Amino acid sequence: MVPVSLAADVTVKDVERAAERLRGHATRTPLLRQDLLGSGLAEGVFLKPENLQRTGSFKFRGAYNTLASFTPSERRRGVVTSSSGNHGQAVAAAAQILDMKACVVMPEHAVQVKVDAVRSYGARVVFAGTTSPEREATAQEIGRREGAVVIGSFDDARIIAGQGTAGLEIAEDLPDADIVLSPVGGGGLISGVALAIKAKRPTACVFGVEPSGAADAAESLRTGKIVTLGTIDTIADGLRTSRVGNLNFGIMSRLLDGIVTVSDDEIREAMRDLAFKSKLTVEPSGAVAVAALLTGRIQVGGAKVVVLISGGNVDPSMYREILAGS
Amino acid sequence: MVPVSLAADVTVKDVERAAERLRGHATRTPLLRQDLLGSGLAEGVFLKPENLQRTGSFKFRGAYNTLASFTPSERRRGVVTSSSGNHGQAVAAAAQILDMKACVVMPEHAVQVKVDAVRSYGARVVFAGTTSPEREATAQEIGRREGAVVIGSFDDARIIAGQGTAGLEIAEDLPDADIVLSPVGGGGLISGVALAIKAKRPTACVFGVEPSGAADAAESLRTGKIVTLGTIDTIADGLRTSRVGNLNFGIMSRLLDGIVTVSDDEIREAMRDLAFKSKLTVEPSGAVAVAALLTGRIQVGGAKVVVLISGGNVDPSMYREILAGS
Repeated sequence: MVPVSLAADVTVKDVERAAERLRGHATRTPLLRQDLLGSGLAEGVFLKPENLQRTGSFKFRGAYNTLASFTPSERRRGVVTSSSGNHGQAVAAAAQILDMKACVVMPEHAVQVKVDAVRSYGARVVFAGTTSPEREATAQEIGRREGAVVIGSFDDARIIAGQGTAGLEIAEDLPDADIVLSPVGGGGLISGVALAIKAKRPTACVFGVEPSGAADAAESLRTGKIVTLGTIDTIADGLRTSRVGNLNFGIMSRLLDGIVTVSDDEIREAMRDLAFKSKLTVEPSGAVAVAALLTGRIQVGGAKVVVLISGGNVDPSMYREILAGS
Repeated sequence: MVPVSLAADVTVKDVERAAERLRGHATRTPLLRQDLLGSGLAEGVFLKPENLQRTGSFKFRGAYNTLASFTPSERRRGVVTSSSGNHGQAVAAAAQILDMKACVVMPEHAVQVKVDAVRSYGARVVFAGTTSPEREATAQEIGRREGAVVIGSFDDARIIAGQGTAGLEIAEDLPDADIVLSPVGGGGLISGVALAIKAKRPTACVFGVEPSGAADAAESLRTGKIVTLGTIDTIADGLRTSRVGNLNFGIMSRLLDGIVTVSDDEIREAMRDLAFKSKLTVEPSGAVAVAALLTGRIQVGGAKVVVLISGGNVDPSMYREILAGS
């Protein structure tokens, strides 16, 4: 267990080093000015579309940064991680680029399309139970037995620094951004982004957004300690983490300007607007920050607002249903 | 009628001047490296997603370049143009940015969502008949009566130069591109792009793609003269032009390496792959070049291929049907 005080160990310098490592490997996603989405709400609305990142989510940034930080002997050992979705694809793709062996521990009920995606990048898939602790235990066991290096998905300085490169790009592309909105799951993306934004533009506000059915981060910030949720109920499968990471909580406590929540119906509505006004396929988790903007959950009048889209790996049949729902 | 010999009057210098005008106004769309779409077909597949351009299509580039080239007295007169879709939205948005009056002549059967989009940018909409000549005649009449400057949508050096800025960006972002694939309607996009690509990377090939039910450009290149189609039958509404422009034909004859055709079913299949593998909402016209890649209509083995996505303004109910079709 990493103590919260170590949060200070991740700095914008780490994010800048991660950006160097990612150059030429990660997609430098653009900032997309929106004329129709959220028109009239803000001085300007810009999307940072990480659904267009390699492997379909921001997770590629942290995964690639972590694996590219390995020593030569670690690279030879290969990597093992547990994931129900986007992180697994990202580790598999990064390992393939770096010519490393990768093993991803997935839940027994994992949907076939996600299993296929991980395998398409050449990784081995091992199934273990249905809960996150079961998967993590299996990953640790594989690490011990096979010598592979075990990595997590958010509570890790290399992961946070990698995800933060999205924030550096925002600061470069829109130096006068006033507000940045980001989804919050385990806290990997938002803590990295907050490190970068607050270093490059200290006056900008950074807000987190999570589903009301998985609002552990909001509750943790409110009470000043990490809260673990007993029940989780949201369509946003990528944000079904029951507790934020320790490193992440330290950074979030220090740097965030607030966290708001949105309902599943608001997420669905945001996905439809993203499909037809912004021309982007976005998964439920990826649309929460747009939902917060569109519902006025955060006041943005007169401000230049950047909204992070975290990913686009949505099950086709669910997507068809959501698009038909309006 | 502009003689074909004038084609030489549009050069890469005009495209570079257009890029200066567009800086800060058009979205600089990225090149998106594809790991899943067309994997195994080429050395590398990259999308140029102009569906993410302002107003949802590349048309903004040419429209803004044209209006920004107006003299002060022309600006005061305002602009009138005819369009059934994307060009109208683009002119309306560009005029709004430049603080000019705009009028768009649309067909009587225009779908409401397109009419609403044009109006959302503050332009006036006039309805006229159902055919392109009827709309053009009405635009000319409004020009004479109200003094507004009449502009076309593809057979114009300023439009071609504006669209060509997409090609300049491709050459900057992937200097070793081998093949560029682009949709062909009236020829505005592909002729501008070919001017830029052949100037910056003379060894690269540029191929056009059009629907088999509107293959006037392929037939025109084959016969060496502009062919006008009697009947047009394709789902790709943005490519239902019955003849390419004169300027465009001159440039295409000189610079293109070929034109291939794709069926409507191949277009639908490409749209589904774009939605789920590339995370992009693409309209039928926008997907033709991807369809040509995926069906192997153009041999790309060992090459670095850039595929232009021209737009994403698809009717929601049609889009739902196409996504459900697999």
